[in-house]
Amino acid sequence: MPVKIALDCMGGDHGIAVTVPAAVDFLRTHPDSEIILVGDEIAINKNLSSFPSDQADRISVVHASEVVGMDEGPAQALRGKKSSSMRIAINQVHEGRAAACISAGNTGALMAIARFVLKTLPEIERPAIASFLPTASGRVCMLDLGANIDCSPEQLYQFAVMGKCLVTASGGSKNPSVGLLNVGEEEIKGNETVKAAAELLKQSNINYHGYVEGTDIYKGTTDVIVCDGFVGNVALKTSEGLAQMLGHYLKEEFHKNIFSKLIGIASSPVINRFRRRVDHRRYNGASLLGLKGVVVKSHGSADQYAMQFALERAYDEVKNNILQNISLNVELTQKGMA
Amino acid sequence: MPVKIALDCMGGDHGIAVTVPAAVDFLRTHPDSEIILVGDEIAINKNLSSFPSDQADRISVVHASEVVGMDEGPAQALRGKKSSSMRIAINQVHEGRAAACISAGNTGALMAIARFVLKTLPEIERPAIASFLPTASGRVCMLDLGANIDCSPEQLYQFAVMGKCLVTASGGSKNPSVGLLNVGEEEIKGNETVKAAAELLKQSNINYHGYVEGTDIYKGTTDVIVCDGFVGNVALKTSEGLAQMLGHYLKEEFHKNIFSKLIGIASSPVINRFRRRVDHRRYNGASLLGLKGVVVKSHGSADQYAMQFALERAYDEVKNNILQNISLNVELTQKGMA
Repeated sequence: MPVKIALDCMGGDHGIAVTVPAAVDFLRTHPDSEIILVGDEIAINKNLSSFPSDQADRISVVHASEVVGMDEGPAQALRGKKSSSMRIAINQVHEGRAAACISAGNTGALMAIARFVLKTLPEIERPAIASFLPTASGRVCMLDLGANIDCSPEQLYQFAVMGKCLVTASGGSKNPSVGLLNVGEEEIKGNETVKAAAELLKQSNINYHGYVEGTDIYKGTTDVIVCDGFVGNVALKTSEGLAQMLGHYLKEEFHKNIFSKLIGIASSPVINRFRRRVDHRRYNGASLLGLKGVVVKSHGSADQYAMQFALERAYDEVKNNILQNISLNVELTQKGMA
Repeated sequence: MPVKIALDCMGGDHGIAVTVPAAVDFLRTHPDSEIILVGDEIAINKNLSSFPSDQADRISVVHASEVVGMDEGPAQALRGKKSSSMRIAINQVHEGRAAACISAGNTGALMAIARFVLKTLPEIERPAIASFLPTASGRVCMLDLGANIDCSPEQLYQFAVMGKCLVTASGGSKNPSVGLLNVGEEEIKGNETVKAAAELLKQSNINYHGYVEGTDIYKGTTDVIVCDGFVGNVALKTSEGLAQMLGHYLKEEFHKNIFSKLIGIASSPVINRFRRRVDHRRYNGASLLGLKGVVVKSHGSADQYAMQFALERAYDEVKNNILQNISLNVELTQKGMA
């Protein structure tokens, strides 16, 4: 069975200039995949015509006359943009023409439309946003990154199940360890919600590690880190800000004078290796988990290289039946409860 | 009036080996200061004897027979360690013999004992932990960093007032801008607590900037960033973890082979300049704000250089009457409300 992915070609900062070449490239490396390009048909076909037609039979184009703006509110996008490339890409999944969809458009609108069109899995209260981050020893899957501001213990527990399934579907451990983000590792720490979620996790058959702290995210203490969307969003954006500042400082120091510029040139192989290692593009692709369909959000600024990773994420989720696994695992772990 | 500081000499990873030399150094550069060294009298005097006696008339030693352990619970330290160096250092402030106290001991115990002995300012519901962090353009004061897990809008508002006073007392702007940490900048974002706190801040005469996101911390968008202790703690520790990981990666790349090692040696002036710029020791000293006395927490791993900054923080707070300013500002901003 080919893996069929619908790609919103209009979203993000670069639109067709990035999405179409990324799709062509992805088809080359994934012979069992098919891509539906959704957006301005004329512009897409024009861009497509610059590529050799080897993959032509695995590409189709579906026209969309509107685009959801990056600053558009979720409600507005949901009600007012029924012909948007984002909406029509999600429709492809709903109507069974694709198993997954990807958009680099605005996250709030994507989640709102995906929830409305696809609906939430019956076992899941609310979908969550999950992403992988680099760690000292590999990578960690963190969720929720901003979809749910206030979470119940049950929701945090469901996030743990979904994170576990994402790790397994993405080539990671079959029994990933799960940490619950808190302000300390001791049992007495944290608020009532976190404490109650810890009890649910202890009683389940999830490989529950216990509480973890902010420092544990990048240490790679666990395979999955669960938190509410407020905390997860702040942690993610704080990291982005710090990495930007440090990169900026490093650049400034290497550009300070002739001497440091020369050192900078000599150091470039080392610095470039370092850059590749922490390249956030390799972690592009946040999964909207808990929906009746695979939906992946690409970063708005994603280039062709980054977009490949978002496509890969969607491909892996479909290939490894993440939806069935989430449903099955919620049931299994619930049965495993005392 | 000399600024009198009580220093818990036993707390932290290094105890007397760091605290006593740091105190002697600080007295040299601050001729209007006096320091009370609290801890094992014999050990302190032995360490003191290795220094010239120029500052001897501005140093006194108060004996303490116990030490609060780094892993000791706050309740246990509060009830069981009445003769600890931490408790006796705080007592110096309570009994008017010192205007400030500093400890590198465990944060939970320090806050619990300080609240019990000194009490909270009448205008403040709960004390908070505040610290400065480096930004692209200078520094930002962030609070609460972990003292209060669940916060009311009124508490967040009081944190804003206290952060404002700390910035001013530490040589910053007289009218610092205050941002409220949220998951987006739009008015509709965030939970009910954050929204209600925003209303209080808008109606006060605080220089309120609006919502800020995690990325804004290190951008330096505002002088003060206010959040609850759960979010603040996670943001701070996530930053620590990321910085450690990046430092580790950079070191690894420079140690990969002979070639990169040589480049590493050549680059060391640039890398060292970068390191100095982001040296967390320069930001050592978290203020426990809202108490009837100045209390500063030094990082447990602080060396002599780092300890100087914690002493400086306490000195500035006393010198610039932070306690009176907090009380006055809470009243003023409350009067300024519509």
